[in-house]
Amino acid sequence: MFSPIRFSVGNVELLDQRKLPAAEEWMRCESTEQVAVAIEDMVVRGAPAIGCTAALGMLVDLEKLSWKTWREFKATFATNIERMRCTRPTAVNLFFALNKMVEVAAKFADESSCDEVRTILRQTAEAIFWDDQRTCMAIGEHGADLFSKPVRILTHCNAGALATAGYGTALGVIRSLHKRGLAKHVFADETRPWLQGARLTVWELLQEKISCSLNCEGAAAFLMANGEIDAVITGADRIAANGDTANKVGTLGVAIAAKHFAIPFYIAAPFSTFDLKASSAKDIPIEYRAESEVLEFRGARHTPMGLKAVNPSFDITTSNLIAGIITERGVIKAPYSANIAAAFKGHS
Amino acid sequence: MFSPIRFSVGNVELLDQRKLPAAEEWMRCESTEQVAVAIEDMVVRGAPAIGCTAALGMLVDLEKLSWKTWREFKATFATNIERMRCTRPTAVNLFFALNKMVEVAAKFADESSCDEVRTILRQTAEAIFWDDQRTCMAIGEHGADLFSKPVRILTHCNAGALATAGYGTALGVIRSLHKRGLAKHVFADETRPWLQGARLTVWELLQEKISCSLNCEGAAAFLMANGEIDAVITGADRIAANGDTANKVGTLGVAIAAKHFAIPFYIAAPFSTFDLKASSAKDIPIEYRAESEVLEFRGARHTPMGLKAVNPSFDITTSNLIAGIITERGVIKAPYSANIAAAFKGHS
Repeated sequence: MFSPIRFSVGNVELLDQRKLPAAEEWMRCESTEQVAVAIEDMVVRGAPAIGCTAALGMLVDLEKLSWKTWREFKATFATNIERMRCTRPTAVNLFFALNKMVEVAAKFADESSCDEVRTILRQTAEAIFWDDQRTCMAIGEHGADLFSKPVRILTHCNAGALATAGYGTALGVIRSLHKRGLAKHVFADETRPWLQGARLTVWELLQEKISCSLNCEGAAAFLMANGEIDAVITGADRIAANGDTANKVGTLGVAIAAKHFAIPFYIAAPFSTFDLKASSAKDIPIEYRAESEVLEFRGARHTPMGLKAVNPSFDITTSNLIAGIITERGVIKAPYSANIAAAFKGHS
Repeated sequence: MFSPIRFSVGNVELLDQRKLPAAEEWMRCESTEQVAVAIEDMVVRGAPAIGCTAALGMLVDLEKLSWKTWREFKATFATNIERMRCTRPTAVNLFFALNKMVEVAAKFADESSCDEVRTILRQTAEAIFWDDQRTCMAIGEHGADLFSKPVRILTHCNAGALATAGYGTALGVIRSLHKRGLAKHVFADETRPWLQGARLTVWELLQEKISCSLNCEGAAAFLMANGEIDAVITGADRIAANGDTANKVGTLGVAIAAKHFAIPFYIAAPFSTFDLKASSAKDIPIEYRAESEVLEFRGARHTPMGLKAVNPSFDITTSNLIAGIITERGVIKAPYSANIAAAFKGHS
């Protein structure tokens, strides 16, 4: 299965998503700091992919250096965990993956051998990666079960193989629909300012030979009004206990338009994207990225000098706009607070 | 007053809006065909500006050539009217202006002198231009009357001086609010794919020293959810008899989001933008422009080869989403069919 992340002992390689579709370049990271910077700079993006990369990235320093003392090992581990936590604030999968690594490390007593801990940490990180691929395939199948005839799907941003360990969440559903002959057409929002839709989503869809086209997000409501969209499916960066969902900026507008035209709007995301500590939208921090992302295009300014830009990277779709959250264990529907709590009770 | 259109006998000069804000270049058109191509290629854009340019552009051929016979004059006039009608399909001001020219010419008998007709046609075209400036100022004042305290306005695309003979429609309201000290802040949607917001609207606002910032249209709903927007005002390219309004693609999504958050959504447009022959949205043709506008940026492709794009240039906001239509004679509110009919009855 295609994955944007490759790894072996002492390194992580990332498909540089800033350069797609023009070039398919892999960036080799040989320190945990390099991995952290790659996450910050969006060499890799997408909530599940960030989680996997962070976990695997933790191993790079631990495996490269030779550890004299457990104390030194533990200090580096703690420093790197904190460094990694600061890379991106919204995607909860990052914290989910790092917390799992911390949990595993915490089980070891001070007399443990560094080699032993390192081995277990590698197993943990790789398990996060392989679990994510299996999870995406399960999301894809559950999502495809929602449809019994060919459908035209609109998606926003990239929740594809590139945003996960492989297969994708929203694009996982579309891949599974395609296998069943039910993916009639995919409309991809270009997703300003970073153009994940225009560069990444359509790149994945063309590779799979899935019928698709690109549109500016401003055209999404028009396509809905014209009866050209049967359903909307997007990914998620964080889902609160009441179902409120943070995803790429622009998702909220698409969800409101879908509601207006009575088109079902689905979120596709793994359990690791839920943050039950966040009771609702108000507990989810929204990352603002550099104004230059809006003011410039590929480093060249197309806007007047002296202009300011507002560049929130995410928005929050309130749960009343969501027809269902497609997870690896099935589709969660309203009432969300009760059904999310029940799903997690069954899960733990 | 600043205008994007300059004219004298035998020529029309247009501020090349494709090059703003990087360069302020005026394109001199010395044939009616050059004016038509300039409209098609969006050297000038915006419904009222297109109307004024088309009327003034009709004079260029008529004044440059020396006419031996009235028959020859009439044939050129008729050919050029048809050529001009084909430049852009959605903005009704184009047809309004051309019809006025045809009406005036039709009054003359076959024995009229070409010089005499030419003079009257020039007076007609210039009257359309000067009327548009006065109209915009009246729209601005009526629109500003809607607000009694400082407001934060979101606008989509450019309905400014650049889209009219001067002053603007939506930006006319903002200019009038600014004069009254009530324009607290303007959020400009960048307006993909042509970036009228990012290049033109903010350029005008910065020149007037009106507080403003740029955002991707995907962020508009987020700004509304955050309580940062008090009202939305956009222009219009054509308004049907029931109030359904065609405007730049993306307007519909903004209007739906505004309704969702109970934020008033206003259209600012002159009477010449109404098309009473169109009973509703279904009678308004929507222009699709080249896919390359979405697939490329400044001629460089950022999307995968082989990809298709859907590029409607306009969408239609149904009248149930509109809080009021700000015209030069006051604000028309629901019920639109009755109130638009009444306004036109009083007008004619």
